[in-house]
Amino acid sequence: MPVTLRDVAERAGVSTSAVSRTFTPGASVSAKTRAKVENAASELGYAPSALASALSTGRTKLIGLVSNNFHNPVFLEVFDRFTRGLQERGLRPLLVNLSDETDPANSVRMLRQYSADGVIVASSTLPPSFAKAFADAGLPVVHAFGRAMVRPDVHVVGIDNIECGRIAARTLIARGYQRVAFLGGPASATSTQDRAAGFATEMAGHPGITVSESHAAAYSFEAGRAEMQRLLAAGPPAEAYFCGDDVLSIGALSALREAGLAVPEDVGLIGFNDMEMAGWQNIGLTTIRQPIPEIINAAIDLVVATIDVPGDRPEARHFDCTLIERATLRPKRD
Amino acid sequence: MPVTLRDVAERAGVSTSAVSRTFTPGASVSAKTRAKVENAASELGYAPSALASALSTGRTKLIGLVSNNFHNPVFLEVFDRFTRGLQERGLRPLLVNLSDETDPANSVRMLRQYSADGVIVASSTLPPSFAKAFADAGLPVVHAFGRAMVRPDVHVVGIDNIECGRIAARTLIARGYQRVAFLGGPASATSTQDRAAGFATEMAGHPGITVSESHAAAYSFEAGRAEMQRLLAAGPPAEAYFCGDDVLSIGALSALREAGLAVPEDVGLIGFNDMEMAGWQNIGLTTIRQPIPEIINAAIDLVVATIDVPGDRPEARHFDCTLIERATLRPKRD
Repeated sequence: MPVTLRDVAERAGVSTSAVSRTFTPGASVSAKTRAKVENAASELGYAPSALASALSTGRTKLIGLVSNNFHNPVFLEVFDRFTRGLQERGLRPLLVNLSDETDPANSVRMLRQYSADGVIVASSTLPPSFAKAFADAGLPVVHAFGRAMVRPDVHVVGIDNIECGRIAARTLIARGYQRVAFLGGPASATSTQDRAAGFATEMAGHPGITVSESHAAAYSFEAGRAEMQRLLAAGPPAEAYFCGDDVLSIGALSALREAGLAVPEDVGLIGFNDMEMAGWQNIGLTTIRQPIPEIINAAIDLVVATIDVPGDRPEARHFDCTLIERATLRPKRD
Repeated sequence: MPVTLRDVAERAGVSTSAVSRTFTPGASVSAKTRAKVENAASELGYAPSALASALSTGRTKLIGLVSNNFHNPVFLEVFDRFTRGLQERGLRPLLVNLSDETDPANSVRMLRQYSADGVIVASSTLPPSFAKAFADAGLPVVHAFGRAMVRPDVHVVGIDNIECGRIAARTLIARGYQRVAFLGGPASATSTQDRAAGFATEMAGHPGITVSESHAAAYSFEAGRAEMQRLLAAGPPAEAYFCGDDVLSIGALSALREAGLAVPEDVGLIGFNDMEMAGWQNIGLTTIRQPIPEIINAAIDLVVATIDVPGDRPEARHFDCTLIERATLRPKRD
């Protein structure tokens, strides 16, 4: 059994309260008692627990990891990389599953109660104000997958979704598609808004191309499938769809094939993220890769730096996205 | 800003050490001082932090959630249900990602340091001795998805994998398959060992059926695909495969289709778990459903009960599995 505070008190010949005060910053304890306690602790190999040590260092090494889409398979990679990245740095992830909650108050209260050293909000759908609530409560915070901004209110690490929307548009243009559509995620998601804006901006330079837009209710297989079914029932499909993300694309792909349409022969599709399933040979989704490992490493580095030296101007770090060519778009025209 | 210990001390006209001692169990403080501190705390609405409150109640409300397969998509549902289930009960998940680590020492040390109230080990591959290490260190523990045993060493909640292997065998027998195989997960995984044993036991009653067995290196898409490619290169395939789990099945399915074989016309497949992707129309995997929501709820209930009343005899709770018929086995023969 590990050495306890009580053992140290006994060895030092002082009260447990004296031991507790020795390890509590600001608490009053005489130099003589402190010396006795420190000697006894050292002789017994007493390591104050992380919680006791937190009381004296002010650091719990707990990092809140707040997210709202535990259903999206892209989060498998996100959770794996986050938890391993934190552990490698001697930090521990305290997970907060928001489900459909969009008010940060509960998470802020909880993470303050546990004296988390910092917070990483991992979400491409929550607005910048969500992450800002943690900063306002005095918690170092980084918004991973947050909206790209020149002068953000809190640290943000992610991608420039507007530019990524342009990459998708340029890809469809280069393939010679004439009737294209954006089948986005929820209209309230900043990632959807920005991808749609970039897509529309680039297409605006090509007036010969017809562009339409619709939205699935969520970044999920079922929502993508349902929205594509609705589109197919409403009229002839576009020649190619830029879908909100990969899981939504796979739902749309399913709806197209169930309707007897061949991909990419009848309809083209391009996704977003390059999650593991996009590369499964049964799926073979052409998509835009978001560099998740780099984003997560940078988010962890930034939250750690902010814990060490708070008060710096919020920083935005953006990584480039790249086209991953698989089997759901027709070849480039020469 | 929240009320601090210092504010309470000032209001009560006592030292911070006196406030700290008031909230520390066993610490010495006069009745008069205690009354002053409690009045001041109540007037100011002082809520001791979770950590301070842990020092007085002995409960941190932190539950360690230890797992070793963050890559398997089935864990999306596991993490979602665990985190929500804990939160609904006012508990917080402290995540431990083992990656390839099989020694519990580090996790035990870490969860003790954080004074976790209890631990849930979520893994179908780790041996019972892994979870036992937490119990030996005095931490209430439940092994979710652990090996079914009549008299387990620690609480275990899951399924009877031997019985599930028999269900798979009976399903293939009822379809009239004559040459069948078990394409299992890693041979070291208790879930693989038990599914293989149940499958073999049931098949032993049908001497006309040829049975073979091989193992993928992991419960993963790539491992399932690679093992099926190896089998196809080595000779003609079996008529039907019982695969170690769903993600491995989907890898095997991919390898079969890439080799120009039709499923279920040329080769039948049955998976295990019924994770979300098994139901994707692009995949349509016939599989055996493991009741994950029920298992997770029971695991949380059991760890909470053990925290409240420790020292009870370890309990085993097992849930039934059911066949989910989709599109990768030929129909039942009349």
